[in-house]
Amino acid sequence: MKLKTPPGLDEKRLLAALRAFAGVVGEEWVLSSDQDRDTYLDAYGFSHLDAHIPAAAVAPRSVEEVQALVRLANEHKTPLWPISRGKNLGYGGGAPVQNGSVVLDLGRMNRILEVNEKYGYCVVEPGVGFFDIFDHFQKNRIPYWLSIPANAWGSVIGNALDRGIGYTPYGDHTTRICGMEVVLPQGELVRTGMGAMSGSQGWQHYPFGFGPAWDQMFVQSNFGVVTQMGLWLMPEPEATLSATVQLSRRDDIRWAIDALAKLRLHNVLENNMVFGSYLHEAAVLSQREEWYQGKGAIPDEVSERIIEHYGLGWWKFRLNLFGHEEVIRAKERIVRAAIEPDLGQPLDFRLWRRGDPIEGSGAGVPGTLPLQIVNWRGGRGGHIGFSPVMPPDGQLALEAFRRNKARYEEFGLDYYTSFTVGPRHINNVNLVIYDRDDREMTGNARRLIEALIADAHKLGYGEYRSHLMFMDRIAQGYDFNDGSLWRLNETLKDALDPNGVIAPGKSGIWPAVYRKPSA
Amino acid sequence: MKLKTPPGLDEKRLLAALRAFAGVVGEEWVLSSDQDRDTYLDAYGFSHLDAHIPAAAVAPRSVEEVQALVRLANEHKTPLWPISRGKNLGYGGGAPVQNGSVVLDLGRMNRILEVNEKYGYCVVEPGVGFFDIFDHFQKNRIPYWLSIPANAWGSVIGNALDRGIGYTPYGDHTTRICGMEVVLPQGELVRTGMGAMSGSQGWQHYPFGFGPAWDQMFVQSNFGVVTQMGLWLMPEPEATLSATVQLSRRDDIRWAIDALAKLRLHNVLENNMVFGSYLHEAAVLSQREEWYQGKGAIPDEVSERIIEHYGLGWWKFRLNLFGHEEVIRAKERIVRAAIEPDLGQPLDFRLWRRGDPIEGSGAGVPGTLPLQIVNWRGGRGGHIGFSPVMPPDGQLALEAFRRNKARYEEFGLDYYTSFTVGPRHINNVNLVIYDRDDREMTGNARRLIEALIADAHKLGYGEYRSHLMFMDRIAQGYDFNDGSLWRLNETLKDALDPNGVIAPGKSGIWPAVYRKPSA
Repeated sequence: MKLKTPPGLDEKRLLAALRAFAGVVGEEWVLSSDQDRDTYLDAYGFSHLDAHIPAAAVAPRSVEEVQALVRLANEHKTPLWPISRGKNLGYGGGAPVQNGSVVLDLGRMNRILEVNEKYGYCVVEPGVGFFDIFDHFQKNRIPYWLSIPANAWGSVIGNALDRGIGYTPYGDHTTRICGMEVVLPQGELVRTGMGAMSGSQGWQHYPFGFGPAWDQMFVQSNFGVVTQMGLWLMPEPEATLSATVQLSRRDDIRWAIDALAKLRLHNVLENNMVFGSYLHEAAVLSQREEWYQGKGAIPDEVSERIIEHYGLGWWKFRLNLFGHEEVIRAKERIVRAAIEPDLGQPLDFRLWRRGDPIEGSGAGVPGTLPLQIVNWRGGRGGHIGFSPVMPPDGQLALEAFRRNKARYEEFGLDYYTSFTVGPRHINNVNLVIYDRDDREMTGNARRLIEALIADAHKLGYGEYRSHLMFMDRIAQGYDFNDGSLWRLNETLKDALDPNGVIAPGKSGIWPAVYRKPSA
Repeated sequence: MKLKTPPGLDEKRLLAALRAFAGVVGEEWVLSSDQDRDTYLDAYGFSHLDAHIPAAAVAPRSVEEVQALVRLANEHKTPLWPISRGKNLGYGGGAPVQNGSVVLDLGRMNRILEVNEKYGYCVVEPGVGFFDIFDHFQKNRIPYWLSIPANAWGSVIGNALDRGIGYTPYGDHTTRICGMEVVLPQGELVRTGMGAMSGSQGWQHYPFGFGPAWDQMFVQSNFGVVTQMGLWLMPEPEATLSATVQLSRRDDIRWAIDALAKLRLHNVLENNMVFGSYLHEAAVLSQREEWYQGKGAIPDEVSERIIEHYGLGWWKFRLNLFGHEEVIRAKERIVRAAIEPDLGQPLDFRLWRRGDPIEGSGAGVPGTLPLQIVNWRGGRGGHIGFSPVMPPDGQLALEAFRRNKARYEEFGLDYYTSFTVGPRHINNVNLVIYDRDDREMTGNARRLIEALIADAHKLGYGEYRSHLMFMDRIAQGYDFNDGSLWRLNETLKDALDPNGVIAPGKSGIWPAVYRKPSA
């Protein structure tokens, strides 16, 4: 494959930059063979696209090496694309927005620097995965939980930096960040919050420090390279109560979302709940062709057949209560009173007590089984997400379901959705599953996402996260006062990163050197 | 009083700026008489100091007027000092850091723009006080609470922007911000988070938006003028259980802080608790001279006499449980088990049910009675705060108590402290009460605060908030990597505010035009 270079940098100068990088990390950690580059491609990307292709990767093992690389990147005007572990394949994996970027792979920086059992926090490097944390905690009998997301091979830091979600009361990971160490785009090292004091005894205790607080500046953005992060841990509860609920009617979404939102608002339920369609399970357990060989979206009668076969509902959600046993028993009665009249049957709550096998606890157990869904359409599968934020209202959710399902059908793709109920919002995560080598299908997938973005924009719903391919498009939708927030982003980007070396294009933020004249 | 002008601006040019401002807001809202200026002085400031003196004030009534004023300030190179209501007297009231700044008084922008009873949020302008919200909610029977701080005449927005604290589970007000409208230092209008989409239906639902999130950039800082804010409201609970605890022995702080911190970590107690010394009440109920006429800090035996007279403990704290009655009854048993063995007597919990008089609810009821403490020393009283952040540990709190009390005594001032227990930290708020016209006493107050800052720095404790007078000193304490976080602050300040017109010196952040050569 021909080497991709970024705008304004020819192959000769790019290779000179890579040689300079090798002087920092050693030859073996500059990864620039074709095979190396393949590793960092967008695994679910449309195979015919000539986009998001890195020039190489470089893998430092210390903050000093990161600083040295960032300084060289400025000298050589070479864009770096920092990744922690690069495992969120639905949003682009380890691939950069800009062709020819050099992936700054932080996977070798994988130390768990501190686990504080008294105060309930940990400090980790970007390469630490959920698997690592889980194993470490289990092995050392550490009585804390880090909420584990659906696919657990990803980075703990990377997940928090992309506002990923887990399913315990600590599952909004970005809200549990307490203090970062960051290499700024010109190589300067800062520590945020109380960590800005040398010898600080408050860095992981209080997230704000004195003056403005910057942790969220480094989230979903390109203002620095995060090399350490403090995260608050959830004390292992005495007990949990869990119930899985299947709902047979599609319209059940209305009462169920209203009930869940109210329980969440009143803090009876303390965690974000995934309210998902049957295909979440069916696409793990089977492939589409087992049920249907036709073109176009899978017909409703086939969906019903699948649902019946596996004994599922059209919708499924899981209720979890965490805490002291007598407290959650009291909450159980409140939840039953809120859900059972509409459900028409008793909830089947299961009790887990500290010491029982962790699988039944609701903490989440690392796995990658859900990745199986990409095989649904056959071929080399992929999926891509469309994730607008909505108010937590049953009628609006029902309308979103009907509207989006119709759009999927218009483009011949199978509707796959979930409505994650947060404290005051819903993350409506819709996945499009495709065969990435089927050009007609991926073309439809792209057009579908574009149509969904446009539909959402008309209703005032913005996306909270995006695949590389749609970052510009989504940023453009943030159009209040002619896009003044993105002008602010650009002003700050240019002040911190005059050479535009850190992740150009991330979240639609382009440095001056790459900015299109229209911006 | 002679007109103060800021560096680089003579009286003639300042007056020209004020005339231009009058063209925006009308003559009557440019407040530049001696009496007007007095209104904005630091009410508790040391009377002999020639610092923090505004040139005038200007009071817009709309965001368009704020934008126009900010643009004129750039044109005329005139520093503005935005205040919401300017009522936090212990940190400087409405006075600016920099002499000759023009106070931008947002008190006329006092609309409650929205109260959403379905989703539990409000949107307010800066002039809305806690009194206003409380009255509005009571009058309209709105079943939500905004946690009310000790002195309630201040601004709701101002409190959240200074990281002020209330005492319900929503009392960390800065963490309940969801979306802002901000005039940037050159007059551009932005909306943060989901509000950056025109017609957004998610602005107050989800705090982050897409890409980096900026709400905390505008907190304790000088990067813009906040003209609207969304805040999440706490649903009125079904019931609360409250118990007041008095502890007679000073060393009780050790076990009590440990117990409270553990209950807070495990989320049994969901609100920040003030653990305060006897003087909180004694200084409201009496004046020092009633007990002691000598010089120097009040002796321990006199303290004991006061404590005995009023039937207080050396320490006092209040336990509050909020929620469904059966849930908080279950929590009550857990709290009793954690506290009563060391306390040596049963806790006296009082039940409040929805519909009972609000005073017993733990919601907080607006008042200004605690302001009474400034009369403790006689004369024209004042107080100033020293507020380091510490880990929530009983032994460390005991050591802080002993260390700081000794420092107060060294400077002849009466020790007044509280340890507010948060989720992973303590805000150790220490007040120094003085007669502001007693030059010896205020000199000692200043030296005491400086000594306390230095002591804390040695231990790695940074302050979370500060009076105007100590902002530079405290910022200097954030010295990791030679103060790299403040260099970041300055870089961003210069990018957004090249003329340095918004609140120069706030939180130790100076724009280039004012920066001292040493910085």
